[in-house]
Amino acid sequence: MILLRRLLGDVLRQQRLLQGRTLRDVSADARVSLGYISEIERGQKEASSECLAAICQALELPLSTVMAEVSGELAREEAAVAGLTSLPVATTAKVRADVTNVAA
Amino acid sequence: MILLRRLLGDVLRQQRLLQGRTLRDVSADARVSLGYISEIERGQKEASSECLAAICQALELPLSTVMAEVSGELAREEAAVAGLTSLPVATTAKVRADVTNVAA
Repeated sequence: MILLRRLLGDVLRQQRLLQGRTLRDVSADARVSLGYISEIERGQKEASSECLAAICQALELPLSTVMAEVSGELAREEAAVAGLTSLPVATTAKVRADVTNVAA
Repeated sequence: MILLRRLLGDVLRQQRLLQGRTLRDVSADARVSLGYISEIERGQKEASSECLAAICQALELPLSTVMAEVSGELAREEAAVAGLTSLPVATTAKVRADVTNVAA
């Protein structure tokens, strides 16, 4: 199952790093606790809509831009999963292992 | 503040109605309680990532498609808010009233 919070966390972390900012900095700007932002970035906690809006504001990114990126990542993962499930079982296991290795 | 859960709820309801399906039907398919789905559609509760994935599966819609629609709606609202905040105060009040009337 592809989980929104994991891809959302990835996009938020990526954007923060692109800006060369620390978790502490964004946490202070967004007035969201450091632990909570860290868990959101790692896909371990769902971000409430209010919290997500505050983080986007701290990153000076429109929420629409963040969600468009998330949608693109989702589409890529869906295509990868669809590709895997349309293969014969033995091949699927092999490709899954390869994908896991690439991701690691 | 533009809240993701409100726009997400709107898109999910819109898609369900386009398919001519009832809340009860989607609730049974997604194995998500009727009350919870209803609150998600009205933007009153945050959908967990697992729950959102189950609803999308029940609607036979890729999550990426739903999030792309949400992103489009967000962009429209952001543009509307930006348009309002760049107008003089007196005009803003008038346009806000018009927008409210159109939305009602």
